[in-house]
Amino acid sequence: MNHANTHRIPQPTLAQVIERVDTHLNAFLEQRHLPQNLDEAIRYSLLGGGKRVRPALAWYSAIACGHTGENTLHAGAAVEMIHAFSLIHDDLPALDNDDIRRGRPTLHRHAGEAMAVLAGDALLSLAYESTQEHPAPLIALKLGTELARGTRAMIEGQIYDTLGGDQVGLTDLEAVERIHRNKTGALLRASCRMGALSVGAPDEAVELLTRYSEAIGLQFQIIDDLLDVEGSSDAVGKALGKDEAAGKITYPSTIGVERSREHAAYLGDVAADALLELESLRIGDVAPLRNMGDMLTHRES
Amino acid sequence: MNHANTHRIPQPTLAQVIERVDTHLNAFLEQRHLPQNLDEAIRYSLLGGGKRVRPALAWYSAIACGHTGENTLHAGAAVEMIHAFSLIHDDLPALDNDDIRRGRPTLHRHAGEAMAVLAGDALLSLAYESTQEHPAPLIALKLGTELARGTRAMIEGQIYDTLGGDQVGLTDLEAVERIHRNKTGALLRASCRMGALSVGAPDEAVELLTRYSEAIGLQFQIIDDLLDVEGSSDAVGKALGKDEAAGKITYPSTIGVERSREHAAYLGDVAADALLELESLRIGDVAPLRNMGDMLTHRES
Repeated sequence: MNHANTHRIPQPTLAQVIERVDTHLNAFLEQRHLPQNLDEAIRYSLLGGGKRVRPALAWYSAIACGHTGENTLHAGAAVEMIHAFSLIHDDLPALDNDDIRRGRPTLHRHAGEAMAVLAGDALLSLAYESTQEHPAPLIALKLGTELARGTRAMIEGQIYDTLGGDQVGLTDLEAVERIHRNKTGALLRASCRMGALSVGAPDEAVELLTRYSEAIGLQFQIIDDLLDVEGSSDAVGKALGKDEAAGKITYPSTIGVERSREHAAYLGDVAADALLELESLRIGDVAPLRNMGDMLTHRES
Repeated sequence: MNHANTHRIPQPTLAQVIERVDTHLNAFLEQRHLPQNLDEAIRYSLLGGGKRVRPALAWYSAIACGHTGENTLHAGAAVEMIHAFSLIHDDLPALDNDDIRRGRPTLHRHAGEAMAVLAGDALLSLAYESTQEHPAPLIALKLGTELARGTRAMIEGQIYDTLGGDQVGLTDLEAVERIHRNKTGALLRASCRMGALSVGAPDEAVELLTRYSEAIGLQFQIIDDLLDVEGSSDAVGKALGKDEAAGKITYPSTIGVERSREHAAYLGDVAADALLELESLRIGDVAPLRNMGDMLTHRES
């Protein structure tokens, strides 16, 4: 494993990381020799213009621990596949019934509902194949455990969001926080933790990255809620006002737009503090993660 | 790890193995603390009267290698969860559109389509959690790799069966064999291999169990095809004649009932030969696997 401290050399730009991740995903799929129609459906969803937030978080978490991001590609690809699977299944008619995703037809509109179910299933299982490819067996196992934890939480979040359940005694704010922490937060958390675990980072660093990622995860989703109320459909690339139309509870519907904005800003501070503390360990460069946090906070889509 | 040679002590009956598997599945689910509605849906599908063929194959594969089956429970539970997930998703309206399974409403009829999609997803991911629980990390990793291989092949089989693809140059017989080897065979193969891997069996034994399981896997599915033509709805517990109505290619539709029966019998011989060879290694007791093979060949449902 490369223990070189990389925080004095220039870090790759986000565009370079995205390109590296996409090259890796391409190669991963080529090695699988999937049936041609399945391969096409998976590529349509997985390589169709995602922002690669999750693999970038994994990559930059490694840099924050003093390593290059190269060894995080198995983890980053895995989390990106889980993300892609969840979007495909969430878009299905029986769930959110969305026709547009990233400005294009959703997979079930493009390739039919049967393929959307099966391609989602395949991506979920392929994600575990990806973690299994990490060259160090004990790390590969840890990555799988972390992936399972994040994936289960994400599915539970979708259950709470779509079908409710276990809500007795929860306030609306507690309910919406639980949905967000599970449905979106758990996978962003897994991205950072898996990035750090991929390079054998010390426990203390993993814990600080956990705190950072939990904060930006919730912040990310509150901003998503706000964009649904305030954004423009062109910038967001999907239909707006859907949360309200679907009667879903969101931060703005629960505590209002202004307090939602304040809470998002507060979570940004929590994330920044975690990075400061990580920086004080002097093991790596936290600047790329700091920039990611800023990008997520100030995004318009 | 228990290296005791168990082939001189009485083996547990199939009913005892099933009971042990069900107790384990129950405990596994309890430890997960799933949302109540998800837990209910998963229990409905997973604990709703399956024959536990796959965990029993894992258990008996361990016995054939001279170990008790106790350490195969993580593997057996994992494969059973993959099997349950695949039935739930295959039954969906967008796929086989089945209303009855094991004599009861399918999960989407019982709990709605959204829950059926999500409970299937959860089971797929939970299966990996189960393999990760094997106490020996390197074995846990191998089990995950084997599970991923079987699961992917199964999904590819469903793609071929439902949506076709990559069929240029294949005869009907080649096409139906490919569907069966993937859709059903891959998971039975994984059951035996994972059972043997769970107890650290030697490579030679794993290979013989692979040959055995590939033979009974294809045999099992040919018999399934024959039952769809010849069985009674009560005994099979699901609608009959569906293959023909759906225009699906099957062994009987491709090479006729009589030659299908002959081929099933031939595969029984291949399986028996593999067990004889395994027996000649004198490491364990192959009798329970032999009985399983007979049970699968002579079943009426």
